[in-house]
Amino acid sequence: MNATLAQARAWDAADPLREFRARFALPAGVIYLDGNSLGALSVATQGRLGEAISREWGEGLIRSWNDEDWIGAPARVGGKIARLIGAGAHEVTAADSTSVNLFKLLAAALGARPGRRVILTEAGNFPTDLYVARGLAGLAPGVEVRAVASDAVAGAINEQVAVVLLSHVHYKSAARRDMAAITALAHGAGALALWDLSHSVGAIEIELNACAADLAVGCGYKFLNGGPGAPAFLFVAERLQETLVSPLTGWMGHAAPFDFVDDWRPAPGIGRFLAGTPPMLSLLALEVGVDLALEADAKAVAHKAERLWELFAGEVAARCAAHGFRLITPARAAERGSHIAFAHPDGYGIVQALIARGVIGDFRDPDIMRFGLTPLYLGYEDVWRAVEILDEVMKSEAWRHTPPRAAGRVT
Amino acid sequence: MNATLAQARAWDAADPLREFRARFALPAGVIYLDGNSLGALSVATQGRLGEAISREWGEGLIRSWNDEDWIGAPARVGGKIARLIGAGAHEVTAADSTSVNLFKLLAAALGARPGRRVILTEAGNFPTDLYVARGLAGLAPGVEVRAVASDAVAGAINEQVAVVLLSHVHYKSAARRDMAAITALAHGAGALALWDLSHSVGAIEIELNACAADLAVGCGYKFLNGGPGAPAFLFVAERLQETLVSPLTGWMGHAAPFDFVDDWRPAPGIGRFLAGTPPMLSLLALEVGVDLALEADAKAVAHKAERLWELFAGEVAARCAAHGFRLITPARAAERGSHIAFAHPDGYGIVQALIARGVIGDFRDPDIMRFGLTPLYLGYEDVWRAVEILDEVMKSEAWRHTPPRAAGRVT
Repeated sequence: MNATLAQARAWDAADPLREFRARFALPAGVIYLDGNSLGALSVATQGRLGEAISREWGEGLIRSWNDEDWIGAPARVGGKIARLIGAGAHEVTAADSTSVNLFKLLAAALGARPGRRVILTEAGNFPTDLYVARGLAGLAPGVEVRAVASDAVAGAINEQVAVVLLSHVHYKSAARRDMAAITALAHGAGALALWDLSHSVGAIEIELNACAADLAVGCGYKFLNGGPGAPAFLFVAERLQETLVSPLTGWMGHAAPFDFVDDWRPAPGIGRFLAGTPPMLSLLALEVGVDLALEADAKAVAHKAERLWELFAGEVAARCAAHGFRLITPARAAERGSHIAFAHPDGYGIVQALIARGVIGDFRDPDIMRFGLTPLYLGYEDVWRAVEILDEVMKSEAWRHTPPRAAGRVT
Repeated sequence: MNATLAQARAWDAADPLREFRARFALPAGVIYLDGNSLGALSVATQGRLGEAISREWGEGLIRSWNDEDWIGAPARVGGKIARLIGAGAHEVTAADSTSVNLFKLLAAALGARPGRRVILTEAGNFPTDLYVARGLAGLAPGVEVRAVASDAVAGAINEQVAVVLLSHVHYKSAARRDMAAITALAHGAGALALWDLSHSVGAIEIELNACAADLAVGCGYKFLNGGPGAPAFLFVAERLQETLVSPLTGWMGHAAPFDFVDDWRPAPGIGRFLAGTPPMLSLLALEVGVDLALEADAKAVAHKAERLWELFAGEVAARCAAHGFRLITPARAAERGSHIAFAHPDGYGIVQALIARGVIGDFRDPDIMRFGLTPLYLGYEDVWRAVEILDEVMKSEAWRHTPPRAAGRVT
């Protein structure tokens, strides 16, 4: 769909989520379309962290592990995230990074499928998923990481496969996998399914248990607005918790860490998948982001995500047809996440020119421009104006003045 | 040594580190003797984190990975920690938790010693060290964790051993290992030495390179005052960095993470030992603690640690001889860290009675009372008064009124 500015404003005025914009501390002059990479700061975070620092740490000191229930924070925050992903509260814990959690669950999945040594994934998956799987294969004997073309995954699920590792939403294209269908194929072949929710959690509806998912990991710092490098989370279906074994058996996963005994005894349930002491300040910041996400109606969020996307796509089609953008995100709402991606040979320079004008998206090799559509703090007018500025950048060829890309730069 | 109150005060007045006390935000009415478990809050932390949250995250958003050098923070903070442990700046990075870093380096050490499958450690080591080693042994074929009695470690170093894993300072007794001697024994047998510095870093002098140490990990939230669950660090001697392989190959350890390529290529040097995205808020809080530690003269810190210890031991000997405390920390300064530990059959109740009176130490099974002696924010009068209150608790038998210990409680 495309729209006039007046229409976009009318949709904002009627938006049931419009009150959420004021809950975020976004800078003036910025249209932030990179919440799929680092979510925005919620206003409540500063106060909550100030309290955690000065009162809980400063005054409470070591006592706050009990008195402020720091010790329960991974399970508490995990239980809240569970409500966003269709899981039981006792099936999710916040912990470590996505990479470390992937390692734990891939190793546990291989252990649960003796005789099978294949991790099946797709080529071009988010790199850390591939790197972690290959690092594990370098340590555990005989493990093979089989990375096949995206459309060959379903056909490659067979009785050699221990675990199918896929992103729910692809970080470049935003293409969404059919979680229920792929999980059923995995189960039909006797394999487990491990879903990376990093690019879907907080943006679209997820129903892990309804899809019979086995395992999942996800990121706290994208659509959950948990802050830079926020702790990640992991999900293990209740039916698997007592048999799966994480190789990262740190003291926080022990049944009684403060007994300080030499012998390992796993905590009951999801707690056994913890490893070391959680980074509490970052974890409490994540909790603020999750709490805010829980205030919003999930269906309203998903519906607005769809409409923001349709407006972005429609405006580009209507205004930018001559500029050579190729939409690479699936057009059907059920087949995509909540960012929109276009290929363009001059994509890098175009994204930099947009950033210079306050429209912050990002670029992914070789030619992909990504724009995150975050229903809680973006409005229809924001999207409308972003495409207007994109059109201006193209007409003025402003992107030709972008300095060349420097090595080592975060894009 | 023991002292009068007036003498203790005179020592405080002459203490070259006395100005540091005001740099910490300690609550009134508390003598904090648990900095070996969770360090105190430094005054600068609140402002630094406020800035990181509101300006760097809130306004800078994704741009701060470049503009505020978030991407360089693990190496930067690691380089600062390096100065506290006698390492080169490029030999240390802040990353993950101690548990996760132990896993990385134990696996890397085993990979560097093909044909050897023994991890040698001591029974009663800090539990996470034992748990992580055993978790790794469950994943990598043929690995044996050989945990021998503390005084049998040196004699057990032989040509079967791939890596010797020891705490530099023992978490219960505060007994300090001779790092140079044990490392030399390990090298003589062709093994590597991995030191856990969690209970020594920031409190006593450490000279990793002078001791020819190979590998080390350590904790950010004890004597480094980095905040609850602060990120940990790891050290890999420069000569080993290009050959050792971490199994936790996450994207932050890639040579070019923002090229998003499918194939793993390790970052040059210490950077390859990173895994996932670092929890930035917790990492920046750690940096404040480390910066403060670097302001202090390391020799003055070590000297004051020795004298605080001697005063504590001397006062207990002089005042509490009848109360049945058994000192389990080595008396010679070179053989201990910076906490003092006593065994007492009623230790749990005594520690709780002390906490109720504002003297915060902690208890470790089966009967150990631990008191951390942190030179930057503790004075001689604090120690003097702590022992006075200990004596009162014993004389009044106040500890008899302590509620029984509850399961699951952080001690």
